[in-house]
Amino acid sequence: MSRKLLLVGASGVLGRAVAAELGRDHTIIAAGRNSGDLRVDLTSDESVKALLAQLGTVDAIVCTAGQVHFGTVADMTPAQFDLGLQDKLLGQVRLALLGQHHLADNGSITLTSGILAEEPIRQGANAMAVNAAIEGFVRAAALELQRGQRINAVSPNVLIESWQGYASYFPGFEPVPAARAALAYRRSVDGVDNGRVLKVW
Amino acid sequence: MSRKLLLVGASGVLGRAVAAELGRDHTIIAAGRNSGDLRVDLTSDESVKALLAQLGTVDAIVCTAGQVHFGTVADMTPAQFDLGLQDKLLGQVRLALLGQHHLADNGSITLTSGILAEEPIRQGANAMAVNAAIEGFVRAAALELQRGQRINAVSPNVLIESWQGYASYFPGFEPVPAARAALAYRRSVDGVDNGRVLKVW
Repeated sequence: MSRKLLLVGASGVLGRAVAAELGRDHTIIAAGRNSGDLRVDLTSDESVKALLAQLGTVDAIVCTAGQVHFGTVADMTPAQFDLGLQDKLLGQVRLALLGQHHLADNGSITLTSGILAEEPIRQGANAMAVNAAIEGFVRAAALELQRGQRINAVSPNVLIESWQGYASYFPGFEPVPAARAALAYRRSVDGVDNGRVLKVW
Repeated sequence: MSRKLLLVGASGVLGRAVAAELGRDHTIIAAGRNSGDLRVDLTSDESVKALLAQLGTVDAIVCTAGQVHFGTVADMTPAQFDLGLQDKLLGQVRLALLGQHHLADNGSITLTSGILAEEPIRQGANAMAVNAAIEGFVRAAALELQRGQRINAVSPNVLIESWQGYASYFPGFEPVPAARAALAYRRSVDGVDNGRVLKVW
């Protein structure tokens, strides 16, 4: 069954792979901060509300957008830590909280955490906190969503396509192809999972 | 060995139990938003910096303060979700980030998460995200702290002393005495643990 799917973060490496995978049989509405069919700033209630109002009802909401702060604990400021909270964490939670009211019966929400929720790297304290919080939110929210709605998180490993810039931060990690990570989004959207963290590592 | 210990949140049910336990052989400096030897607002860099400047160097920092938002996912606003991020999560992280520079060699930081990091209750989506993030931060930060410093989180169950107000939110949970939860803070301060979540449930 073809579904109407809002994809936020569609222009990123991961987003493009998700669009390629799910665009084969679903109608993708691509949104992003600086590109896409529609523009949205996930740090703004007004921006997210305006996006959702334009769309009417959607069958699935997928988010592959969000940034965290990378830096050492010794030098990290509370304001830097808050950057990740406001962007990758609250940005995605905002999309889920506001989006639930524009989501069809039995629709799904899929957020993105990451391997750093569980596996530490240097300068990754903000990422670990943010990713763990996204997974905590998903586990709890799944128990409360109504009308058959579901919510999951996909936790990708570092991507092969991004490996060149990140390899030195991820010693010994096995990068995965974005196309493989995209399969987890397929599972979340078309499968039965709810309140799950779908790991791609 | 008697240690100089900063306890933020000292006037709460849990804080009083921690003060009773650790005050037997350590020098407790009690701080709180509205009471204690010293006043501090954990949501403000300036307030935390002023507190730390007054203290000089401490051997241990313990935090039992922080609030989250309780409410249904259906009705939750991003601003309400952010309340917990700013208060219990970033408030404690702020104390840790700024406090590390006022902490003695081999000193310890002990933050407070809670059973809701792993066990869901109705209206607990913000609490689950916030507590999971605190634990994620602790696990990552422990790997970067310097000069032998350690950091842990204590995850208490709901407290017997608070049971009357909370029982209906925690069906089937087994509340624990605050004095038992206080032992986990003792372990964190005087023991060898680092990057641990000490569960009291």
